[in-house]
Amino acid sequence: MTNEERAAKQAEVLGANAEFYRAFRDADFPAMERVWSLGSEVVCVHPGGAPLVGRRAVMESFRSILDTAGGFRVNCRESRVFLLGEASAFVTCLEANGERPAHLAATNVFVCEGGGWVMVQHQAGPLSRPVAASADLGIN
Amino acid sequence: MTNEERAAKQAEVLGANAEFYRAFRDADFPAMERVWSLGSEVVCVHPGGAPLVGRRAVMESFRSILDTAGGFRVNCRESRVFLLGEASAFVTCLEANGERPAHLAATNVFVCEGGGWVMVQHQAGPLSRPVAASADLGIN
Repeated sequence: MTNEERAAKQAEVLGANAEFYRAFRDADFPAMERVWSLGSEVVCVHPGGAPLVGRRAVMESFRSILDTAGGFRVNCRESRVFLLGEASAFVTCLEANGERPAHLAATNVFVCEGGGWVMVQHQAGPLSRPVAASADLGIN
Repeated sequence: MTNEERAAKQAEVLGANAEFYRAFRDADFPAMERVWSLGSEVVCVHPGGAPLVGRRAVMESFRSILDTAGGFRVNCRESRVFLLGEASAFVTCLEANGERPAHLAATNVFVCEGGGWVMVQHQAGPLSRPVAASADLGIN
């Protein structure tokens, strides 16, 4: 991979990560369904929860969350992307409610399927000390 | 990949995951240093903590934890491995103190470097309801 190809992939992954949070924030369930992989097994660890394995369990959890989380305007901050070869990657970031200090830290794993990046894993967990908003660190 | 090759890789990743927990449990810092990648950027999200990025920050955190966590006999349970192509993978599992109910859920990402699997990411976060011990689910 050239540096340009690498930067392009990193930008694509950050785009997929941003789309996850947009779908979450807008309670856009069809978009959330598109964010997650159809071809690979998927896993989701919501804050406080045990791992949910399989697309059906993960999608049911998001349907329930998006139906009831109208007051949670999730924002992703300080996202960093780490490529794992050419066709998989993970992102770490902080999650906040609107402009409040971030109260969650997250890991999101993506794979490239059919030319697009889709989520195969999400884990978010609470921060002991909320982190005030700062500039996004961007691609590293 | 044939099914046999796939199963062999899954077993190797679970072995690397088990070695992470053994090094943790035995407060074996040199082994912990070998568990983590030297060739890729690494990230660690300890329970309650913000993401630590870079080998130096991650290793310092484990040195501190292993120096002081003598009473925490971390056990990994219900580990499941998910291959991301041929040279990367992630594991989800629960973490417990000895035989107590598990109180943490974790995601661990590995890459294959120089023929061996090494960790590039670890996130552990608290379970709202601790999970009593059950049989390990093994490879899926």
